[in-house]
Amino acid sequence: MGRWEPNARGRLQEAALELYVERGYEQTTVAEIARRAALTERTFFRHFADKREVLFAGSEALQECAVEALDAVPAAASPIDAVAAALEEAAAVLQDRRAYARKRHAVVSANAELRERELIKLATLAAGLAEALRRRGVGEPAASLAAEAGIAVFKVAFARWVGEADERELAEVVRESLGELRAVTGGASGGSR
Amino acid sequence: MGRWEPNARGRLQEAALELYVERGYEQTTVAEIARRAALTERTFFRHFADKREVLFAGSEALQECAVEALDAVPAAASPIDAVAAALEEAAAVLQDRRAYARKRHAVVSANAELRERELIKLATLAAGLAEALRRRGVGEPAASLAAEAGIAVFKVAFARWVGEADERELAEVVRESLGELRAVTGGASGGSR
Repeated sequence: MGRWEPNARGRLQEAALELYVERGYEQTTVAEIARRAALTERTFFRHFADKREVLFAGSEALQECAVEALDAVPAAASPIDAVAAALEEAAAVLQDRRAYARKRHAVVSANAELRERELIKLATLAAGLAEALRRRGVGEPAASLAAEAGIAVFKVAFARWVGEADERELAEVVRESLGELRAVTGGASGGSR
Repeated sequence: MGRWEPNARGRLQEAALELYVERGYEQTTVAEIARRAALTERTFFRHFADKREVLFAGSEALQECAVEALDAVPAAASPIDAVAAALEEAAAVLQDRRAYARKRHAVVSANAELRERELIKLATLAAGLAEALRRRGVGEPAASLAAEAGIAVFKVAFARWVGEADERELAEVVRESLGELRAVTGGASGGSR
């Protein structure tokens, strides 16, 4: 039981996603995931707290990549450009797992509990980017606004990307969406009353 | 038991919030809320599904007000101005219950489950505003971007407003934050790579 299983984590993730797509998330048990991956339940629980966490195990790593990319942006860059660099890095990570990301999105979208979890992860990412901006000396509310607006763009871009039949890169859709946000906000008169 | 209790709903909300502030949300029971309000548990459950819903009972009404305000904006207004009108209406609703809104925010912020619920309500509001924009003929992704960016602004503005000692109106903070979002996004070069 304690022996090392080659790529157990990745096999469990693939097996879980397959089963969630085939049978639905609610109907799938940890025992079934382990069996599909030809591993034991004990091995499953060495890698994941529960069947939900299989889908969110990559969130911390994704956030670390994004924050590192932000930290690496030259100090002279504007806050929104720094956020854009972070989001493009996150996009590149997801791009490498395009098929997985699309299937995962379908599973998450179909379940209220998973959608909630996804919103929390995005809020955590926004908070992490705002914190990284403040470390660069960006004041409030500019730091929070740039980070929250960036996450808003990322959400919209991601939804477009998973829905698109063609093979555009997510980073490209993120850049385009950010340009569209500028057009949307820049075209306004500055008040409605 | 079935008799009409004057303002039972409001009394239960006030009692619940008092107890959540005094003892913590987790430690408070429905029986205690009902007792504090001098009502029965049965009356509580005629108004709310559980102790969590006491805190979110106003969300649907808030969203309806916001969407109605958006629908009333002249067709010539830009999408972001239409969203701004919706958010200012929501701000006015919260302004009328400033003390309640601040206490509620403290309770929600202290509990992970409640923070999740709040994020879902905000995501639902964003989706409702995007839908209202599409009804006006705004295309995608402009509708989703304007709605999501508006909610990003509202989140940041609300957090500033509850944290401020002075007596500014939430609608004013929302307008100011939207202006700052414009400055943040408008000052960028359009790409980071």
